[in-house]
Amino acid sequence: MVNETQHTCSASSSSKSDGGSSSGSESSKDSSRCSTPVLDADRHERLREKMRRRQDSGDRWFSLEFFPPRTANAAVNLISRFDRMGAGGPLFIDVTWHPAGDPGSDKETSSMIIANTAVNYCGLETILHMTCCNQTRDDITGHLQKAKRLGLKNIMALRGDPVGEEWEEEVDGFNYAVDLVKHIRNEFDDYFDICVAGYPKGHPEAESYEADLRHLKEKVFAGADFIITQLFFRSETFLKFMKDCQAIGITCPIIPGIFPIQGYHSLRQLVKLSKLEVPQEIKDVIEPIKDNDAAIRNYGVELAVSMCRELLDSGVVHGLHFYTLNREVATTEVLKRLGIWNEDPRRPLPWAVSAHPKRRVEDVRPIFWASRPKSYIYRTQEWDDFPNGRWGNSSSPAFGELKDYYLFYLKSKSPREELLKMWGEELTGEESVFEVFTCYITGEPNKNGHKVTCMPWNDDPLATETNLLKEQLEKVNRRGILTINSQPNINGKPSTDPIVGWGPSGGYVFQKAYLEFFTSSEIVTALLKVLKKYDLRVNYHIVNVKGQNITNAPDLQPNAVTWGIFPGREIIQPTVVDPVSFLSWKDEAFALWIEQWAKLYEEESPSRMIIQYIHDNYYLVNLVDNDFPLENCLWQVVDDTFELLN
Amino acid sequence: MVNETQHTCSASSSSKSDGGSSSGSESSKDSSRCSTPVLDADRHERLREKMRRRQDSGDRWFSLEFFPPRTANAAVNLISRFDRMGAGGPLFIDVTWHPAGDPGSDKETSSMIIANTAVNYCGLETILHMTCCNQTRDDITGHLQKAKRLGLKNIMALRGDPVGEEWEEEVDGFNYAVDLVKHIRNEFDDYFDICVAGYPKGHPEAESYEADLRHLKEKVFAGADFIITQLFFRSETFLKFMKDCQAIGITCPIIPGIFPIQGYHSLRQLVKLSKLEVPQEIKDVIEPIKDNDAAIRNYGVELAVSMCRELLDSGVVHGLHFYTLNREVATTEVLKRLGIWNEDPRRPLPWAVSAHPKRRVEDVRPIFWASRPKSYIYRTQEWDDFPNGRWGNSSSPAFGELKDYYLFYLKSKSPREELLKMWGEELTGEESVFEVFTCYITGEPNKNGHKVTCMPWNDDPLATETNLLKEQLEKVNRRGILTINSQPNINGKPSTDPIVGWGPSGGYVFQKAYLEFFTSSEIVTALLKVLKKYDLRVNYHIVNVKGQNITNAPDLQPNAVTWGIFPGREIIQPTVVDPVSFLSWKDEAFALWIEQWAKLYEEESPSRMIIQYIHDNYYLVNLVDNDFPLENCLWQVVDDTFELLN
Repeated sequence: MVNETQHTCSASSSSKSDGGSSSGSESSKDSSRCSTPVLDADRHERLREKMRRRQDSGDRWFSLEFFPPRTANAAVNLISRFDRMGAGGPLFIDVTWHPAGDPGSDKETSSMIIANTAVNYCGLETILHMTCCNQTRDDITGHLQKAKRLGLKNIMALRGDPVGEEWEEEVDGFNYAVDLVKHIRNEFDDYFDICVAGYPKGHPEAESYEADLRHLKEKVFAGADFIITQLFFRSETFLKFMKDCQAIGITCPIIPGIFPIQGYHSLRQLVKLSKLEVPQEIKDVIEPIKDNDAAIRNYGVELAVSMCRELLDSGVVHGLHFYTLNREVATTEVLKRLGIWNEDPRRPLPWAVSAHPKRRVEDVRPIFWASRPKSYIYRTQEWDDFPNGRWGNSSSPAFGELKDYYLFYLKSKSPREELLKMWGEELTGEESVFEVFTCYITGEPNKNGHKVTCMPWNDDPLATETNLLKEQLEKVNRRGILTINSQPNINGKPSTDPIVGWGPSGGYVFQKAYLEFFTSSEIVTALLKVLKKYDLRVNYHIVNVKGQNITNAPDLQPNAVTWGIFPGREIIQPTVVDPVSFLSWKDEAFALWIEQWAKLYEEESPSRMIIQYIHDNYYLVNLVDNDFPLENCLWQVVDDTFELLN
Repeated sequence: MVNETQHTCSASSSSKSDGGSSSGSESSKDSSRCSTPVLDADRHERLREKMRRRQDSGDRWFSLEFFPPRTANAAVNLISRFDRMGAGGPLFIDVTWHPAGDPGSDKETSSMIIANTAVNYCGLETILHMTCCNQTRDDITGHLQKAKRLGLKNIMALRGDPVGEEWEEEVDGFNYAVDLVKHIRNEFDDYFDICVAGYPKGHPEAESYEADLRHLKEKVFAGADFIITQLFFRSETFLKFMKDCQAIGITCPIIPGIFPIQGYHSLRQLVKLSKLEVPQEIKDVIEPIKDNDAAIRNYGVELAVSMCRELLDSGVVHGLHFYTLNREVATTEVLKRLGIWNEDPRRPLPWAVSAHPKRRVEDVRPIFWASRPKSYIYRTQEWDDFPNGRWGNSSSPAFGELKDYYLFYLKSKSPREELLKMWGEELTGEESVFEVFTCYITGEPNKNGHKVTCMPWNDDPLATETNLLKEQLEKVNRRGILTINSQPNINGKPSTDPIVGWGPSGGYVFQKAYLEFFTSSEIVTALLKVLKKYDLRVNYHIVNVKGQNITNAPDLQPNAVTWGIFPGREIIQPTVVDPVSFLSWKDEAFALWIEQWAKLYEEESPSRMIIQYIHDNYYLVNLVDNDFPLENCLWQVVDDTFELLN
């Protein structure tokens, strides 16, 4: 988002206002610009600043609450859900803290690791819940330190549920959320944004509604930045609560917690846990339809939409917090009906940015990981600096090895059986591999009637942009040019273009045509002869698994293949073809043949040996057509190659 | 120049050559790329490497020798000559060492300062001569340290002429050039490239031709990188000398020194000093025409051209060194006739680069100094790092104050009387100032019949590129929009375009339209109203001398206004409009009214008061039209402003 504010300043207090200066106030002469182009202000702001900015601008927003999953498979699914629901534009998500589930551990289902994944791999602003009762000061400090190390910036400070039947205060322990708030501020100063819980009907254990409000005020005055409330069933409940809060001097943002009723049983359980009472008018509707899930959900959506509308119409509510129960449909439906689901998310850069603070300035990546952004983030997680402005300025940073294909956020979403259906229970030769690639491109079912919706190098169906090249891609894959990445050339489309656009509006985006594929040594030999004719126009880089390596990249310099020109900004060039990084990508790209495909089959089986043969003998090739204003010549290069072979 | 070499490498020695790898040899896997895009390989190479590269590629080259001038005015003229002759593309120039002229001092006529100016302000690869006899070891080390500090990288090591009648060896002193070569290598390791002198006929004081060759070999073996010879009159003389050198094991480059005869007296003097004998056939031609300068020069050019042709045709000579005697015409003529004067110099960047090693990576500058590059270099000489890739990545470096308008390389080339003729002996009001600006734009004489060929902000006539805007510029200057800098928008012209092109071939260059001018507060008030309509499209920055400051630059970010896309490279964006630097430029731009114009007139004179009034009350405005693919809207902005005023 471009900041349109008019900056005015004056070095001299005696300056007369007899000129254009009358149109603006005066401030200090010192500049306060960031050291990097602020393409996306959100990336540089703290959560509380984002909230304030939305409030000031009258922008309405929403946030989403999730709990950590029980199994590794559920974790894989939750991460996909983060990606899908993240596209709707939540201001943040939050991940609850499950004391029974070893929440601070490195397990893939722990609260800590799920929040880490949301921030680093899904690029979501994330609040990690943390409870304090029954925990030592050192444990809590340890959790907070770990959260900070992982790039988490926001904590929801909670007391937590007592373990025994009756709760007793511990001397010197953390007995209330306010103790945790104070502890965070004492130990971590202003590093974290802190959220605390508010109870529109008063905490069930509080002496009184008024006493509970006073506790809330204590939490805020101890350093909390904003409040998220417990769920409630009537907008009046929240609005009265908000008024009462303000009356006793609570001025921070208070965000209503919304619970779209999604089923009879989940409602009953939640009500039991939260000790809330469901209003009679709701019970009256639900009881008769309690066995009809769809009917209850429809009613829940209706109810939530009308309550949210009342809240937003009140003028005092700017954001809504949704208790999703890790489900997608009801919440998305409510948000879409409210018109605050972002149907057409603008991409700040062509690739998904990570929300780790140390990656704030990152704005260049090699194109190779375009379909595997989480793997790229993983392999660069140890970097201290991220390329900004120019890839070649970074001192050839080393990529981490990728041996951890099992990590849940790097794993294929599809189970083995599904992959076998897509990629073939039994391969009969290299041609059956060509067929799989071709079906992935065309979207047509394979000969067993299954659609190929993912590949080892692409966990998602073909990108809209790649669709522009579909016809040519189909043709070449059929003949053994096994494409895994490509982009068309673009000579200045508006940055708001729904398919290829990115960055702030008012700009223009450009691309050089790119094609990356595996192919046989026979084809490579012909290709190299053809490429001689294209001289400077086409840059190529050809490697095999053994490290044979042929390129015409001048001085091994990176080649910018995507860039954008924006009003009042320096040039942004978010993707490059980098000959040095290509060698790291090559290791990963070749390994995926084995890790994801060959291993589906028995050792020594013919199918496995076919994949192994390709892995051992094929080359990975990338081609860039530098002449972006002309028609893409890469298809001609491939045609010429086949012609030479015939 | 793009390096077209095919890089090949292999990580595994066991790799089979059964693929495309057959087309290239194998080398180490380690990349050796520069940390910055090598737009211009020359900028990154040492002189000896450049020489070798030219020799390998069969490119013919030339170099030019100058001596330090006697007066400050002559220094100003010599610097202009450097700029003009530098445009022809010499591989290097060299500056002789005049022991009598305090050659290592800070005087504007010293050898050291002239060489410094050539390197830093004219961007010329430069060799500084240095003689050693009659000097202490400490003196010489001091000179060398100073040279290094100033960015000089090449030394011509000479003995120098003895002071007394008869020369005597000093014990422990520097008696021969070889002592100086050894000293440089001892004290400065490999930092300097070292050149030594060769005598095709033998040094006049040498015992014999053979003994002199042995001395030369000693100098080379002591660490000299190449040899430049004394002048000679017949190509055979040089070719024999070269053969003799090679015969005794001298393998470094030997560059023939060419002396185009330019006049009878200069020839006689040179011959006397160098103790050479002019061949009879030359004497026979010259004597009869000795009073006809033009005839002698024509003859000298003919003679030099035919001798140079013989040398180049021999196949063993790749470069020619010219003794210019600080004159331009004869040498330029010879070079043009030989076809090695670069008629169409390709610009590596849109602005003149400096040859100081620490500025090697510099590739972004604010557009404001486009017509005052030497002032920009001067004001940034203390910087340790230079922006590379992105201006905004630099941590807002501070510009040095410019109070040194008197420095010879920053001074106007025109004397006071000429300036008065151009800018008016007597001004009658602001309109007579408008008239001066208009005449500068149109090239028409002013009402006293004098052409205005320079302005305080532009020491040269209007740039070819600005000519594209001439008609509109004339119109607005007449009405008091006093333009000092502008560029048209360009939407992807070939990088080889003769007017707007720069950088390696095969690329495309782009520009946003830019306009910078002084104008009255009345016009600024109207302009600001008009600019509201243009919203994001136009970025503006308006300041006055008192520091009033109005801009819509988002977050005070720089705006890239010139950029280029090249094969196999990252994006280069060599000029930006930077709101922070504009405040430093503003001080200089306003001061030039007073320093260069007002001070031409008596204090308290009406003319001086008019300039003073403009200085005190006008605003300096810059405008950028961000929408580079559309027609430049800045003229419409100005038209709308005048319309509003009427």
